[in-house]
Amino acid sequence: MSKFWNKKTNELLPYVAGEQPKDGVKVIKLNTNENPFPPSPKCGAVLREFDEAELRLYPNTDSQIVRKSVANKFRDYITEENVFVGNGSDEVLAICWQAFFEEEKNTDKKVLVPNISYSFYPVYSQLYDVAIEKVPLKDDFSIDINDYIGKDNCGIAIANPNAPTSIALDLDDIEKIVEANPDRVVLIDEAYAAFKNDYETAITLVNKYDNLIVVKTLSKAYGLAGLRVGYAVGSKELIDGMMRVRDSFNSYPVDRIAQKLAAAAIDDDDYYEANRCKIIRTRDRITNELREIGFDVLDSSANFLFAKPNFISAEELYTKLKEKGILVRFFNKPLIKDYLRITVGTDDEMDQLMAAIKEVKS
Amino acid sequence: MSKFWNKKTNELLPYVAGEQPKDGVKVIKLNTNENPFPPSPKCGAVLREFDEAELRLYPNTDSQIVRKSVANKFRDYITEENVFVGNGSDEVLAICWQAFFEEEKNTDKKVLVPNISYSFYPVYSQLYDVAIEKVPLKDDFSIDINDYIGKDNCGIAIANPNAPTSIALDLDDIEKIVEANPDRVVLIDEAYAAFKNDYETAITLVNKYDNLIVVKTLSKAYGLAGLRVGYAVGSKELIDGMMRVRDSFNSYPVDRIAQKLAAAAIDDDDYYEANRCKIIRTRDRITNELREIGFDVLDSSANFLFAKPNFISAEELYTKLKEKGILVRFFNKPLIKDYLRITVGTDDEMDQLMAAIKEVKS
Repeated sequence: MSKFWNKKTNELLPYVAGEQPKDGVKVIKLNTNENPFPPSPKCGAVLREFDEAELRLYPNTDSQIVRKSVANKFRDYITEENVFVGNGSDEVLAICWQAFFEEEKNTDKKVLVPNISYSFYPVYSQLYDVAIEKVPLKDDFSIDINDYIGKDNCGIAIANPNAPTSIALDLDDIEKIVEANPDRVVLIDEAYAAFKNDYETAITLVNKYDNLIVVKTLSKAYGLAGLRVGYAVGSKELIDGMMRVRDSFNSYPVDRIAQKLAAAAIDDDDYYEANRCKIIRTRDRITNELREIGFDVLDSSANFLFAKPNFISAEELYTKLKEKGILVRFFNKPLIKDYLRITVGTDDEMDQLMAAIKEVKS
Repeated sequence: MSKFWNKKTNELLPYVAGEQPKDGVKVIKLNTNENPFPPSPKCGAVLREFDEAELRLYPNTDSQIVRKSVANKFRDYITEENVFVGNGSDEVLAICWQAFFEEEKNTDKKVLVPNISYSFYPVYSQLYDVAIEKVPLKDDFSIDINDYIGKDNCGIAIANPNAPTSIALDLDDIEKIVEANPDRVVLIDEAYAAFKNDYETAITLVNKYDNLIVVKTLSKAYGLAGLRVGYAVGSKELIDGMMRVRDSFNSYPVDRIAQKLAAAAIDDDDYYEANRCKIIRTRDRITNELREIGFDVLDSSANFLFAKPNFISAEELYTKLKEKGILVRFFNKPLIKDYLRITVGTDDEMDQLMAAIKEVKS
């Protein structure tokens, strides 16, 4: 509390990110869903060729070179006009909230989100005065799409795959939700979509539905969490709305270096494919190994596992692993406090995790 | 207008930044107050040594290495706890608006800003629902500090030097405003403060007044407009409020590369001093030369001139210079439409500007 903070700031309950070890402290970090592999070598090349003299000039407002790379990647479905680029997908999501979902003072409708999902959604709703309805998941942690059909709302936001549950909806189910809400913006947050076995993206539906906005990040599959670039794809009408909000907040959200590196990473399709497939293979192997030693593990379509140990409480295992220098994520929240969210690291890191768990168990 | 945009987005009047020529188009760019010189060579060295592999990890939330450099630069007055770092000073300003100035629904008080000042201030007020009172400047475009003393408000924001007028208040006048409003946050935007002849910063007052927040940018004096780093300095109480807002919006606003480059630039005091002094010298020379050929030029404490031609309208001169490949800024607004804002470039660029103006005049 402070007399200098305004009313809202005094009442805020901010998002809490996973802990970051200090630089130089050696841990196996499986708690914030970072990629265990470096970004494309093309990023390194761009970095070494970058002339710092150009930093004296403001960057391109729209991150045009990134828009171009995204449009090229999905060229059968979209053009550059359908792409909005921001300073991490968190900023992109925040701008969607501000642009599309109606403030409480203007409506009695609520934005619908799953009750277990990215915990930033309720935080944005609070910051931007949008009423929120948390729709319960089914008992198996999956989303019942019927909860989002025929139900009044001022917008819908769904992470697909969902987090921290790791479970994905198929694209035809996503389409049913989008189709059933033609007058509302449906936001599909695809932060982890690259890790679904048969890679599907709702971007393929964007030219069919003008109410669909798909949000992506370079932090996960591209191994660029430290660069802060995310983007959204939607109808020109939706993208224009996001630009209006951006231009009322920060005209140049993505710096010159980040724009060039992001474009290089998106252009390197082969590296991206190889990288995501390696992670999928490791994930599926560890899913089986955890199940063999007595974990309930949900079928993951993400680069993390949502797993419940049956021989120890999740919190105790979290603590014991931390003592051994392995960080995983424990959420001390109703409904999910029996589970740990474990990022998929390298094969070697995951073998060390398994060894540590077996030690705890024995 | 769009049925998918919420009410506020439909009503927004976004900020309009100065035009950016396309890459590769050769112009003399004196319209967005960029630095004509590259950033410190130390930035280039950091860039070439940067290991792209570290980009797979999220950056430090607080930009700790930048806080450290800022705290060291002003070590007689502050510590790291007094520093907040953001993605350009525009983001930092936006967060101040959200953290400190009260929303209209909770108060009948207004935030006070000069009627001619950074045109983003009214835009933030609109986006964040803060009522604004635009306090008229005096006829000579200077600020009358008595307008900000004994007048009810929910906060005050003043650019010092002011823009686009280029005129600065002395520090003891700033102090009188801060002292007279002990229960309100007074924001001093020092984007251009490095170019005051006898460099003064309100940061020296931060440990005396817990209601003072000083906002700085690396875009101007450091030649890093393309990097997007700005910061605020204030009491720990104010900085903590800004962090609450940031953590409700984007946990990692400044990327890993930008943090390292920003710290290197701030640490290189000699380069900074030499750079700002060169610009001041060129500015003062061109001020005289413009006055000699019939311009009214305000006494600038910034890296730009606010100048009124007496032989042609400002708009016409803007157009004719543009035809000759020289971009300056013309604001088609009441009170200032007789003036041009001209960024101080290199000596060579300014000589070309003078030659072009003389051609127009002859």
